[in-house]
Amino acid sequence: MRLSKYFVPTLRENPSDAEVVSHKLMVRAGMIRKVAAGIYNYLPMGLRVIRKVENIIRKYMNEAGAIEILMPAVVPAELWKESGRWNVYGKELLRFKDRHDRDFCMGPTHEEVVTDIVRNEIKSYKDLPVNLYQIQTKFRDEVRPRFGLMRGREFIMKDAYSFDVDDEGAEKSYGLMRDAYCKIFESCGLKYKVVEADSGAIGGNFSHEFMVTAETGEDFVISCDSCDYAANVEKAPVIDNFEEDDEVEKPIEKIETKNQKTVEEVAKFLNVETKKVVKTMILKAGDEIVAVMIRGDHELNLAKIKNFLNAPFVEFATPEEIVKATNGPLGFSGPIGINVKIYADNAVKKLKNYVVGGNEKDIHLINVNHTRDFKVTAFSDFINAKPGDKCPKCGGTYVITKGIEVGHIFKLGTKYSKSMNATYLDKDGKQQYIVMGCYGIGVGRTAAAAIEQNHDEKGIIWPIQIAPFEVVIIPINTDDEDVVNLSETLYKKLLKKNVEVIIDDRNERAGVKFNDADLVGYPIRVNIGKKTLENGEVEIVIRKTGDKINCKKDDALSEILRIREELYNNKI
Amino acid sequence: MRLSKYFVPTLRENPSDAEVVSHKLMVRAGMIRKVAAGIYNYLPMGLRVIRKVENIIRKYMNEAGAIEILMPAVVPAELWKESGRWNVYGKELLRFKDRHDRDFCMGPTHEEVVTDIVRNEIKSYKDLPVNLYQIQTKFRDEVRPRFGLMRGREFIMKDAYSFDVDDEGAEKSYGLMRDAYCKIFESCGLKYKVVEADSGAIGGNFSHEFMVTAETGEDFVISCDSCDYAANVEKAPVIDNFEEDDEVEKPIEKIETKNQKTVEEVAKFLNVETKKVVKTMILKAGDEIVAVMIRGDHELNLAKIKNFLNAPFVEFATPEEIVKATNGPLGFSGPIGINVKIYADNAVKKLKNYVVGGNEKDIHLINVNHTRDFKVTAFSDFINAKPGDKCPKCGGTYVITKGIEVGHIFKLGTKYSKSMNATYLDKDGKQQYIVMGCYGIGVGRTAAAAIEQNHDEKGIIWPIQIAPFEVVIIPINTDDEDVVNLSETLYKKLLKKNVEVIIDDRNERAGVKFNDADLVGYPIRVNIGKKTLENGEVEIVIRKTGDKINCKKDDALSEILRIREELYNNKI
Repeated sequence: MRLSKYFVPTLRENPSDAEVVSHKLMVRAGMIRKVAAGIYNYLPMGLRVIRKVENIIRKYMNEAGAIEILMPAVVPAELWKESGRWNVYGKELLRFKDRHDRDFCMGPTHEEVVTDIVRNEIKSYKDLPVNLYQIQTKFRDEVRPRFGLMRGREFIMKDAYSFDVDDEGAEKSYGLMRDAYCKIFESCGLKYKVVEADSGAIGGNFSHEFMVTAETGEDFVISCDSCDYAANVEKAPVIDNFEEDDEVEKPIEKIETKNQKTVEEVAKFLNVETKKVVKTMILKAGDEIVAVMIRGDHELNLAKIKNFLNAPFVEFATPEEIVKATNGPLGFSGPIGINVKIYADNAVKKLKNYVVGGNEKDIHLINVNHTRDFKVTAFSDFINAKPGDKCPKCGGTYVITKGIEVGHIFKLGTKYSKSMNATYLDKDGKQQYIVMGCYGIGVGRTAAAAIEQNHDEKGIIWPIQIAPFEVVIIPINTDDEDVVNLSETLYKKLLKKNVEVIIDDRNERAGVKFNDADLVGYPIRVNIGKKTLENGEVEIVIRKTGDKINCKKDDALSEILRIREELYNNKI
Repeated sequence: MRLSKYFVPTLRENPSDAEVVSHKLMVRAGMIRKVAAGIYNYLPMGLRVIRKVENIIRKYMNEAGAIEILMPAVVPAELWKESGRWNVYGKELLRFKDRHDRDFCMGPTHEEVVTDIVRNEIKSYKDLPVNLYQIQTKFRDEVRPRFGLMRGREFIMKDAYSFDVDDEGAEKSYGLMRDAYCKIFESCGLKYKVVEADSGAIGGNFSHEFMVTAETGEDFVISCDSCDYAANVEKAPVIDNFEEDDEVEKPIEKIETKNQKTVEEVAKFLNVETKKVVKTMILKAGDEIVAVMIRGDHELNLAKIKNFLNAPFVEFATPEEIVKATNGPLGFSGPIGINVKIYADNAVKKLKNYVVGGNEKDIHLINVNHTRDFKVTAFSDFINAKPGDKCPKCGGTYVITKGIEVGHIFKLGTKYSKSMNATYLDKDGKQQYIVMGCYGIGVGRTAAAAIEQNHDEKGIIWPIQIAPFEVVIIPINTDDEDVVNLSETLYKKLLKKNVEVIIDDRNERAGVKFNDADLVGYPIRVNIGKKTLENGEVEIVIRKTGDKINCKKDDALSEILRIREELYNNKI
């Protein structure tokens, strides 16, 4: 490609609405342009990256036996009503009517459509398993779209759906996808973690997230410093190895704690450790109001409570509900005398003589002890893991890493096959529900995450696997015949070797070309200038390391090919 | 690919809602499935065809210097309001509001979005010309979607937009696209015509349609039997070589023509040729009511009138408007005594002593002559061409052909650059409007048109260039070891040669496999059976010709490669 004939409108200034580095750099490098909030044009350079990510995904999906199809962006409401999601999905589902006043939505995910295909076409266990996937434009009407391609409204996604005869088959399909995802992110040249995740609103049995690690990531991942265990904060278990207080139980006392609002203030005022101040939270778990107690130095984990109670959802109770449950004011809830079930974290079980709210304004109780003073329905793990906690797999130590979720796989079970009646006939001619899994990769998000992981103050440092071009040739003195001739010759030789090369043949100063090259992030830059050419040399710059290599002009081709090879093999 | 691991749900019966052969066959061959009216799933076989068409398009667009981008499906109303199309586009434009109550539409075409990109990024004549294209999913809310992929609501389109400094440049860009389109449809293995077309509602200066010829086509094309001239019926000129009547002008007479309604009836009743009965139509051309006269044996062409009058639109006047213009009842309009301008077709100019309506119930006038009896503001070509008319280019004879419009190219001029203020600075630093062209290809429509052109009673006969697979291998006796081994060996050898091959390794009867192969339409079928194998032979069937070739099993590979080559070169 010749840059003079291409369309790469680079910018010097960061766009005013960009908060994260990938957004800033993709706009500045002329890769994307905003059309409306969360809606972008992919300009040529950006589209090339997207297509590369898509092709890597396609390769490993096909290798894993998944079959590519394409479902529509506009989906009739009937299917979503059947699954029950039409009424519960919320405003992210963009709903509208066609000219005949029929209800439709922009598909934010395609479980319904694909389940409809399979229930219509698949009759027998002989037709299973099957895994159908697509790479398609989706729409989610995010309340606050931001971060460029990271959290857009219209976005490109690879979504796959597996259909099996039973759980065992579904788990095998899940394993194939897990392996394929590892190959995909490796082949994109990315450092990533496979993270145990809560299956959340999608439902189903279990799930993993694929996180590209990056200092600028928004998600927190708990991982082990000794083994490969990783989980997101919602999911990572906290082992019940808290030390037991060996105090004798003292008599309970009521203390006025006026103006002491936070756990830290109360602890200081009462001269106890923060861990001895136990918080009592009033929650709504589905239809039921419950109390959950955790130590003052711990963080509540709603996902764990939801799973433990097997509730459809868990959220904080409203002020009215709290007052009704505790007969006391907000901010002073405690376990004694309240009329809802009490659950407590494992860490609380080991405490003695602790502090709780008194269900009265400005009152705390000290020397409180469960069992003696109130009944706990169950103890379990209700808190967020934190760095320093022990790994459940190997006993190593948890560390926390930042990352960007680029893929998510779910074992769905029969959630959709039951609601939409997707069945098959088994060997005995009996009708059975198909067992499903679903598997997503954000294509644009993967490209953006690659930038978050690989950039410097000058611009993007693309992994060569997904770079828009592998090599840029920069003729420095465009008025010098030798410079132009060698640049053109090398350009043509590289094209012949199927190298993805672009030549910056614009009539611009060298400084502009260098800055643009660093900004766009080509892995290999070849500078051809009058000065070095006097010694018969050209300069090769490796974007990733910054290394500059002078080489004889006749060796340039082989040297470029060598460096390219090493970049692909992660040897540079 | 192994058919046993693929997803190709073929059907025996035609879908009940399918009217055209491509729709029937794509559904039966397991290529598409309906999700809602005009909205389809592309199943694996269908998607492969679509991708092949896309890749052929991409190749020649890139070769012509066009640059691929990707614009969003969901487009903000602001842009459409700027161009003025938000209010005039009608119900085909699917409009909706997002969660923040902002207006959006599903883009049915992207002039607005691309013009917005270019006006923001392009400043100088040095940045022009540029041609940006995309292959993208579009939505048009057709009132009556039908014919499968032929007239869907959600469909895949290649749309390109060229931007030039002046008309000369724009015409050069137009020519490049015209040539590229020819290469594209040739490379798809299709017979097609390039047809002069009216630029219609899109506006602009001139346009051509690309028509795939097919007996089952819905569009009529006028073409010359001696040269390559072709035009659609709206556009094809009728040469003014009508014979002049050599009668003397007779005195006008009023005749009662009770119960004579049609031209034919009036002609017979008055004992004149139908061509002597001249029809006077009252039309609304923009703000003006006009009368247009054509011979009784001719068909009115509204597009020609619109262009001649340079009117924003032309339509038949309402009954009220007719009565007001003629002071007479409906059905008896004539030129004498009416109070609107009269235009007449060239053919009328040569007539003498003809019949017209009397602007009175059941009254016609005979021996009417223009100039003497009424004033004609202008004569021109206002009628549809018909077979037998003369070619304007070479004097040959018009014939009529049926076809399917698969591509359309327009020279737009400055319609969008003016309304949206897309300008550049010329060499003298003066601001000028960019001159545009736009160029569309219906991707799914091209696939469907290929079927309309190439099929028989058994199924599809894909041109090899866009076939889902080039070769199918059918092991006839799946319990015979030799048959299975040879099938597998040949399959692997073909894969190594980069042949797109599928093996029908399903446990099905040979008849089922043959029928499916003919239905899906693989260009080359290899039958491997016990019987022929006893003679050391396999059977190769060419779908296009039906030819069956027995060849030695060791020659099968080279024979398949030879046939494949010949199919690509149109030698078979």
